[in-house]
Amino acid sequence: MTSSTSAPTPIRFAAIGLDHGHVLGQIAGLIKAGAEFVGMATDDWSSPVANQARERWPDVPGRPARELLDDESIAVITTAGIPDQRGPLAVEAMRQGKDVVVDKPGCVTLAQLDEIRTAVAETGRFWSVGFSERFGVRAVTRAGSLVRAGRIGQVVQTIGLGPHRHGSNRPDWFYSEQRYGGIIADIASHQIDQFLWFTGSTRAEVVASSVANYANPEQPGLQDFGDLLLRSDTAQGYIRCDWYTPDGLPTWGDGRLIILGTEGYLELRKYVDLAGREGGNHLFCVDGSETSYIDCSDVELTYYDDLLHDVRTREETSCPQEHTFETMRLALVAQEQAVRRGAAR
Amino acid sequence: MTSSTSAPTPIRFAAIGLDHGHVLGQIAGLIKAGAEFVGMATDDWSSPVANQARERWPDVPGRPARELLDDESIAVITTAGIPDQRGPLAVEAMRQGKDVVVDKPGCVTLAQLDEIRTAVAETGRFWSVGFSERFGVRAVTRAGSLVRAGRIGQVVQTIGLGPHRHGSNRPDWFYSEQRYGGIIADIASHQIDQFLWFTGSTRAEVVASSVANYANPEQPGLQDFGDLLLRSDTAQGYIRCDWYTPDGLPTWGDGRLIILGTEGYLELRKYVDLAGREGGNHLFCVDGSETSYIDCSDVELTYYDDLLHDVRTREETSCPQEHTFETMRLALVAQEQAVRRGAAR
Repeated sequence: MTSSTSAPTPIRFAAIGLDHGHVLGQIAGLIKAGAEFVGMATDDWSSPVANQARERWPDVPGRPARELLDDESIAVITTAGIPDQRGPLAVEAMRQGKDVVVDKPGCVTLAQLDEIRTAVAETGRFWSVGFSERFGVRAVTRAGSLVRAGRIGQVVQTIGLGPHRHGSNRPDWFYSEQRYGGIIADIASHQIDQFLWFTGSTRAEVVASSVANYANPEQPGLQDFGDLLLRSDTAQGYIRCDWYTPDGLPTWGDGRLIILGTEGYLELRKYVDLAGREGGNHLFCVDGSETSYIDCSDVELTYYDDLLHDVRTREETSCPQEHTFETMRLALVAQEQAVRRGAAR
Repeated sequence: MTSSTSAPTPIRFAAIGLDHGHVLGQIAGLIKAGAEFVGMATDDWSSPVANQARERWPDVPGRPARELLDDESIAVITTAGIPDQRGPLAVEAMRQGKDVVVDKPGCVTLAQLDEIRTAVAETGRFWSVGFSERFGVRAVTRAGSLVRAGRIGQVVQTIGLGPHRHGSNRPDWFYSEQRYGGIIADIASHQIDQFLWFTGSTRAEVVASSVANYANPEQPGLQDFGDLLLRSDTAQGYIRCDWYTPDGLPTWGDGRLIILGTEGYLELRKYVDLAGREGGNHLFCVDGSETSYIDCSDVELTYYDDLLHDVRTREETSCPQEHTFETMRLALVAQEQAVRRGAAR
């Protein structure tokens, strides 16, 4: 079928920074939502991720980042560069009139976050951090619908667990806090996003946080454990992330989310149900009348569609800008204030 | 078979304070372990628990507490009186030469705890708080064996959840923090016990704690939510307890414990496996080679046997005295320091 005459001109986008594999999902998500992938740039074409991107999209040219930033036909820049480069790139892209879709962590210091805030305010562009553990997980979307519908009453607490598999062949920057941001900025930003979203909080405070290296003393730059306690006006949130996923788990991490309401609760086993059901997206609901397992297979994921809508309309349907700012602010404050434990430097 | 001539004389015990139903389990546990139940006392023979005790043990006489305390043939006093009475009773019982087995919370103020410490030191008697969510749960015992055997490496964190069903027909003292001790002292002491035990910590600090009343503003004396964050030299512990168990759950609470090690982790679903397996005592283990569901049906619970052994030998096989002191100290400090939220007074 050929396109109808009323179809809008596709939004053109480029990827700058191909250092973390998440960029492949970002590119694929934008393409699937209807955007046109017109160029990519990286400082390191030899990286495994860059190679995968070239193989997957062989017709999309590698071009200098500067050229992509100057190209007025490009409306969106997406990036999963080395985390410490993401903030400056986002600022530059916005100053060139582009919206930005960035892998988490969106930036690694509060100073970078301030610069991004200023750039958003001055350019009217948006800066969206793609919290894939919410936007990309059907069970989370479904849980959101249940909470919004009042199924479990007032949400007073979330507990988010983000264990990850360390594996091997990580690049050097993975072991430098200054470059990757530290475990709370890097991983827990997901769970902070979910805390704010599920509790309906627009602001929160970091009550306590810690980072540690308990299992990898030979890699003192790695923080293999992190935790933090949050409070908003109405709710509590506890978060733990780590790099301890054992080889006996059939997937990369047993990500969990427990959402406690005054009239019920939800449990999400996002990627695996231990010695239980196949696959991921396991959602359990206990309310005043029953305990149920909720099928999430028919849930639509709309983040990238919403993003492109927002590019056109300047609305904030994919994620409110202030929510993204607050999520990253909390992550960076918690990271900065974290007590160092074990072998963590 | 008749008893052999070498059988020791049974240890005689009495129950003083029949206000919480836990006392029925304490009495039954001591009897099953071989002790002789010789008397009971309460300030309120009309309470439902006192009635159940009389029905269950009709041949055991009700006697004045003073008489039981003065009876030199009685070696052990067990109690689940109103929590604020437990500390003074324990002190008095120890000063009369008796060991004490008390429901949690063992006491409700740090001053009471100090008096108990002094009495233990001066009398040589022991004060054991029956943390039934450890001593009475086969999956917890089994998890302990796995941890001690090194199955999951170094334990660096526990997360303990203690949700409870509020229900109706609670006595007045249930709604007075001064009398029941507050939700952290009352419930979270279980999870604190488990934190210390599973992480092998002898001391810890309370990093933060909160208590709240979010769902029962008409009962401002009830704290329906509590949480706290602990740290020891080697580990972190997060605990949440609440009175929100919804009617749709087939049991009183979805008690959980997640034990994170550097080489694996355990999850305990103590009383229910949501929309899953029947019954309780669900133990999951993920280690370097597999994810497994571990049957706990053959695990022996030895707390009461060990207690009677300790009465005879003055050993500490059931639970080290210092562990019990530290558990209750942490619970009371966390309770005292807790931020008050919602309608909590």
